[in-house]
Amino acid sequence: MDSKDITLNDHTELAATECNVIEIIDYCTESYHAYTKGISELHHMEELTEIPEHSVRWINIDGICGKKALTALGDAFHIHPLVMESISDPMERAKVEEYRNSLHIIAKMLYYSNSQLVVEQLNLILGPNYVITFGETMGDVFDGIRSRIALEDSQVRNYGADYLMYLMLDALAESYFEVLETLKEQIDTLEDEVMERTDQEHLLEIRRIKKELMKISKYIWPLRDMASLLGREALALIHPATEPYLRDVYNRIVQAIDATETCRDLLSGLADLHLSNTSYRLNEIMKVLTIISTIFIPLTFIAGVYGMNFVYMPELGMRWGYGATWVVMLLIAGCMVYYFRKKKWF
Amino acid sequence: MDSKDITLNDHTELAATECNVIEIIDYCTESYHAYTKGISELHHMEELTEIPEHSVRWINIDGICGKKALTALGDAFHIHPLVMESISDPMERAKVEEYRNSLHIIAKMLYYSNSQLVVEQLNLILGPNYVITFGETMGDVFDGIRSRIALEDSQVRNYGADYLMYLMLDALAESYFEVLETLKEQIDTLEDEVMERTDQEHLLEIRRIKKELMKISKYIWPLRDMASLLGREALALIHPATEPYLRDVYNRIVQAIDATETCRDLLSGLADLHLSNTSYRLNEIMKVLTIISTIFIPLTFIAGVYGMNFVYMPELGMRWGYGATWVVMLLIAGCMVYYFRKKKWF
Amino acid sequence: MDSKDITLNDHTELAATECNVIEIIDYCTESYHAYTKGISELHHMEELTEIPEHSVRWINIDGICGKKALTALGDAFHIHPLVMESISDPMERAKVEEYRNSLHIIAKMLYYSNSQLVVEQLNLILGPNYVITFGETMGDVFDGIRSRIALEDSQVRNYGADYLMYLMLDALAESYFEVLETLKEQIDTLEDEVMERTDQEHLLEIRRIKKELMKISKYIWPLRDMASLLGREALALIHPATEPYLRDVYNRIVQAIDATETCRDLLSGLADLHLSNTSYRLNEIMKVLTIISTIFIPLTFIAGVYGMNFVYMPELGMRWGYGATWVVMLLIAGCMVYYFRKKKWF
Amino acid sequence: MDSKDITLNDHTELAATECNVIEIIDYCTESYHAYTKGISELHHMEELTEIPEHSVRWINIDGICGKKALTALGDAFHIHPLVMESISDPMERAKVEEYRNSLHIIAKMLYYSNSQLVVEQLNLILGPNYVITFGETMGDVFDGIRSRIALEDSQVRNYGADYLMYLMLDALAESYFEVLETLKEQIDTLEDEVMERTDQEHLLEIRRIKKELMKISKYIWPLRDMASLLGREALALIHPATEPYLRDVYNRIVQAIDATETCRDLLSGLADLHLSNTSYRLNEIMKVLTIISTIFIPLTFIAGVYGMNFVYMPELGMRWGYGATWVVMLLIAGCMVYYFRKKKWF
Amino acid sequence: MDSKDITLNDHTELAATECNVIEIIDYCTESYHAYTKGISELHHMEELTEIPEHSVRWINIDGICGKKALTALGDAFHIHPLVMESISDPMERAKVEEYRNSLHIIAKMLYYSNSQLVVEQLNLILGPNYVITFGETMGDVFDGIRSRIALEDSQVRNYGADYLMYLMLDALAESYFEVLETLKEQIDTLEDEVMERTDQEHLLEIRRIKKELMKISKYIWPLRDMASLLGREALALIHPATEPYLRDVYNRIVQAIDATETCRDLLSGLADLHLSNTSYRLNEIMKVLTIISTIFIPLTFIAGVYGMNFVYMPELGMRWGYGATWVVMLLIAGCMVYYFRKKKWF
Repeated sequence: MDSKDITLNDHTELAATECNVIEIIDYCTESYHAYTKGISELHHMEELTEIPEHSVRWINIDGICGKKALTALGDAFHIHPLVMESISDPMERAKVEEYRNSLHIIAKMLYYSNSQLVVEQLNLILGPNYVITFGETMGDVFDGIRSRIALEDSQVRNYGADYLMYLMLDALAESYFEVLETLKEQIDTLEDEVMERTDQEHLLEIRRIKKELMKISKYIWPLRDMASLLGREALALIHPATEPYLRDVYNRIVQAIDATETCRDLLSGLADLHLSNTSYRLNEIMKVLTIISTIFIPLTFIAGVYGMNFVYMPELGMRWGYGATWVVMLLIAGCMVYYFRKKKWF
Repeated sequence: MDSKDITLNDHTELAATECNVIEIIDYCTESYHAYTKGISELHHMEELTEIPEHSVRWINIDGICGKKALTALGDAFHIHPLVMESISDPMERAKVEEYRNSLHIIAKMLYYSNSQLVVEQLNLILGPNYVITFGETMGDVFDGIRSRIALEDSQVRNYGADYLMYLMLDALAESYFEVLETLKEQIDTLEDEVMERTDQEHLLEIRRIKKELMKISKYIWPLRDMASLLGREALALIHPATEPYLRDVYNRIVQAIDATETCRDLLSGLADLHLSNTSYRLNEIMKVLTIISTIFIPLTFIAGVYGMNFVYMPELGMRWGYGATWVVMLLIAGCMVYYFRKKKWF
Repeated sequence: MDSKDITLNDHTELAATECNVIEIIDYCTESYHAYTKGISELHHMEELTEIPEHSVRWINIDGICGKKALTALGDAFHIHPLVMESISDPMERAKVEEYRNSLHIIAKMLYYSNSQLVVEQLNLILGPNYVITFGETMGDVFDGIRSRIALEDSQVRNYGADYLMYLMLDALAESYFEVLETLKEQIDTLEDEVMERTDQEHLLEIRRIKKELMKISKYIWPLRDMASLLGREALALIHPATEPYLRDVYNRIVQAIDATETCRDLLSGLADLHLSNTSYRLNEIMKVLTIISTIFIPLTFIAGVYGMNFVYMPELGMRWGYGATWVVMLLIAGCMVYYFRKKKWF
Repeated sequence: MDSKDITLNDHTELAATECNVIEIIDYCTESYHAYTKGISELHHMEELTEIPEHSVRWINIDGICGKKALTALGDAFHIHPLVMESISDPMERAKVEEYRNSLHIIAKMLYYSNSQLVVEQLNLILGPNYVITFGETMGDVFDGIRSRIALEDSQVRNYGADYLMYLMLDALAESYFEVLETLKEQIDTLEDEVMERTDQEHLLEIRRIKKELMKISKYIWPLRDMASLLGREALALIHPATEPYLRDVYNRIVQAIDATETCRDLLSGLADLHLSNTSYRLNEIMKVLTIISTIFIPLTFIAGVYGMNFVYMPELGMRWGYGATWVVMLLIAGCMVYYFRKKKWF
Repeated sequence: MDSKDITLNDHTELAATECNVIEIIDYCTESYHAYTKGISELHHMEELTEIPEHSVRWINIDGICGKKALTALGDAFHIHPLVMESISDPMERAKVEEYRNSLHIIAKMLYYSNSQLVVEQLNLILGPNYVITFGETMGDVFDGIRSRIALEDSQVRNYGADYLMYLMLDALAESYFEVLETLKEQIDTLEDEVMERTDQEHLLEIRRIKKELMKISKYIWPLRDMASLLGREALALIHPATEPYLRDVYNRIVQAIDATETCRDLLSGLADLHLSNTSYRLNEIMKVLTIISTIFIPLTFIAGVYGMNFVYMPELGMRWGYGATWVVMLLIAGCMVYYFRKKKWF
């Protein structure tokens, strides 16, 4: 925040940071130049602002920079101190802010790394002829853009920095779709399993997917407002020819939100289905068990009756008493089974 | 995207695509001409842009075109490259975009084919005096429109291309209603079945219909925004006289959305009813079984008592002991049945 | 739609329709004239447009007219063909559309006929000095308005056609309240019954009322937008002095919507209460039954012990063994009952 | 409605109504005069319009007036007939309507009378230098205002009629808070009871409170729109200096709405808690009962085995057979109890 | 309210209040002066308004002041009486109100004190060159701000009073995050416990956290509207350079709201999980118990059969009858266990 007390002369300080090298790509219709520069090699951050005429410069910084280097960079490009502050805070909300000479976008990149959903903050500063991007770790979702720029006859070479920004937002939206597709597949697999058998583990799996959907939802909604703003409002740094492209990004993000909602609905239905299935199966088991008991209890009663020790029990002395008792008992059991079957109880 | 590297001279390339023939209908108040043209027959896509004076041309392309043919077509009609890109992507969201000389509409056609809900993307490009439509498969929901145009005194012959677009949107809305009516019937049938008997299959059926409703909902909501935009905003390509018709389409789509919501509510109520019925029936069965057990258990106890082998059990030696025991047991059973009945337990 | 091919000279055609007679009321501050005319008596529909100076004409048509008669009527009053088309479609959504020289309102009349909720579509066309209403069946909710117009010193006689429209909308809103009151009474009756006893039938009754509420809700919400539009926007055909009255109608409709929501909440609470009561009662029964079983099972065990045939069982030979066993068994039963009671289990 | 046919000369008619006396308070910075007047004493309603210069007049009418008196009053103050009509209808929705020379507010007073929630409609007409209030019964929530006006140095004496209206709305909002606090206490008491024991009565109590909350919610929401309108829009009759006070009322009403929502959430959570507790306790009982049965059933089986009458049963003749059986039975019971305990089943 | 009857001459009255000392911090780029003053030391409240030129004054009053002191303070700074009234009411809703020469903000500070969630009202009055804050108790969340001001080269020293207000709002938002993080941890701990074992206590814990979330939600939502207003609308007292900072605060508050919603969702899912787990475990127990009973009941029946005392029971006399019976019984039990296992019933 207090940027004034930092002079750009203390090279050693800059060199002391753990910052990674800076990746720089300069391009225009005719030329293309991509190179990296160690921060310690830079005598002044102002070197970065010397952009060749008619060219667009993309400066990409992966990993956490030192505070001083950041402030120096911000001063060199006349970026508002609040923006530089945001870059150091990995918990910022996705947003777009317009400043006098720059546009500041915060968004989240989502991807699966080792089947773990990773959220990485992306800071993007759009200037008249440059784009600066800050990622948290090495690597991003922009490799496709790099190869496009390298191609001599690609459209991006004829457009300005705002079109580069569009490509980045498009790549972001694409990364959301990939994550959503993975989740959709997981939901479908889970649905098949829930149908097949009831397992309390499914509940935990449902909860896990739900949490990831909540995360995506949390990061994608502000992106929508952002894209809507970029596509509709006339911003100084965005060329009218780029606006249809930004509206296209907006449409893709809305589509991703729809997909998130669909996944949520499916998942919530799945939870209900799991609950219903579990309860149904348990009830079915209890019913069968109870039916077995219910059939034997009257029979046991009859056996109990003829186990009584009364002196005068005429049936006991009868020749076919025992056989008749068996017949009666089998009849009773048969009637009950027939009755329960007829009522479709099992 | 990179449209500049494609020249229209490579006929063979065009011929090599699997693209189907192009259907062309030219009409004005006096004349009507419908014909098809194989893409390989076209020397230049520019042939398609030579529309007879005062006529409206409807160009309909079913099936997937090759990328080159599409780009050529787009260049011939001066259509924004983003539009042409959307046409190749069957996953686009319904939307309307206004460009300088054309209006681009993406919508979904819904219909049942072999009792399977099919979703087909429709791309519609409205120009000053032409409408180009792209469908994914052979056949569409526009046969009624074709015969209307063929009729000499039909209204469409006196109106421009925007009225043709209205007819198409109206046919789309109609197709949604047909699908919704089919679903409504399925819900009603299911409701009758749920009332009659409890079957875990009903739950799956409910889930299936719910998923189809989610699909319809997903495709119909953006259609609403689209129709609203067309009906309210003054767009250059839409004649004021056509606006009431477009508002009418808007109203029909809102009605379809209402119907979707109603179906959802009914279905959700049905799921509750199923759950409640299943649980009620299961509980009723358990209750009856438990009542049977409960009646016999005290009787079995009495039988057990007189099955004891104590030397001194005065009742055993009594002349009417056995008979009296039976009487007591029947009395107890009778009282219990009477009590349970009085309490309306079964 | 294709209105141009119908000439008004084919009287026979008109006569052939099953259309009922047309009811016409002309009134101004001084005069009042109500009469009916068979459609076959009309030589030209234009007769209907010859409205006496300073008078307001109300034309009411009940029952389905033939398409030709409708088109003729529409042409006579210069009504947009879309409006005339809507009149033949009983499934239209409530809406208000402003055309150059007329206002077209579609609304639903709701009333109970033989304790069956009937929905009847009302089409209302407001012109500078006339109101045309189309109902689906004989009879409507406007009898109060007819007698008001007949009264010499009533306010309506001093106002224009827009005030007549207000009266009609007010009568419509009133009809909604009557239906809602009937439903409210049914809910209250049902609540009492649900409190008293549990019956699976209640669930069906709840579902029935819920469906009727859904219907009302469906028809009343668009009415709200309609009334809001009429009350707030400056429409050419509505005199500023009528606007407070239209705002009043709006307020009444909002009130009806509130009542609908209240009914829904009550009903949803009732469903929960039913479920809870059913489950509670069933559980209570099961508990009592299980307690009975649980008390007898240990006793049966004791009886079983002394029913064993071991040669050396000292208790069997004791003089008071049998009596003591009874005492023990009664003690055990007593303790269990006491314990269960103390724990408030029954 | 038809106000023209009523002349103010029919005193007898006025006298014949059951209307109560009219309470009149005139005040300005220097003077204060409060008195009542029987309606029959009034020769002309116009007497009421003769307000002393620089004074504000508050006319308060409690109880239902006759229609004629109302119309006369309305005519005297040039109030729109719709307003006077509303006053007779106790079912009106809370709203504010601006007329040329007056502001008409309908709101509901809520208070507990004999622990019964009473809803009383308040009609308030604000003119340039008067406020007329109509209540349904004797008494209102304005006693605090009366004593404030009576105080010589109170702020209200220096302000106009709009400030008096503010005080009334503030008193209304206060009355809502009192009702809500009573309900909040009832919910807290109920929560303690639900925690302690399960009783189906709690459900009815929850439903009762819920219905009262629905009532409050119904009356308070339109109040919000009303207050918002008064505080934000520049209305002719409201002095800019009063606007901050009206915004304050708005804030208090929003707070009351928040409180209502909080109560609803608490209550809904309470219903869930009740359900969960009831189900939990019932299940616990069933579990204990089932455990008792389960322990005795194998024992009973063993007793049954040695109660069999086979001739060759070696165990029966053994000296310690009986004792050993007891030992085995106790061992089995002990193991089961130990196992169940270890599994924490009871 | 009635502020006119209070004169500032009654020192003794002021001294009599239980008010704490007033904390005053004056600062500008060059100078910094922090001191406290007992209210009794002040001869006139006007002393507080004598702010050194180019300086910003922060007046902080902790604890409840006497009404007279407050009114005197309000008069000295020309603050609207409504504002001073709000300060005495600890139940006010968060809001921002603009007055002619001041901005009045009410917000809530949230923090844990002895693991108890404490809500403290903060009143903040922003003037052209001063900020007055009123807290309810000693201590606040502003210690970080105090040390920042003390630092000679900090940014706050170069900015005006509006920037000080921004810092305070930022500290407030920060305090919300800390509370939310504590709650998030509690939810996570609870989730682990719910997974491990089922305990009815968890339900109470869930309810407790839910209530705290409701509280936070209640206080944070109005803060959002407030921050939105401050960041977007051009208010006289806020320098354009401060606006980006206020938008930043807005973004942080929206983020806090998102976090609250996430916590709510997690908690609601947890309640479902608890319910499901409890029900699942109970059902599992019942199932096992019922299976045990079901296995023994047929065996007991067989034992009962051979306990009957019929004279002619051939099996009884057989040499291996007893052994065969055991074999049969073990076979039956084995079959049942096998069957139940195969069906995966336990």
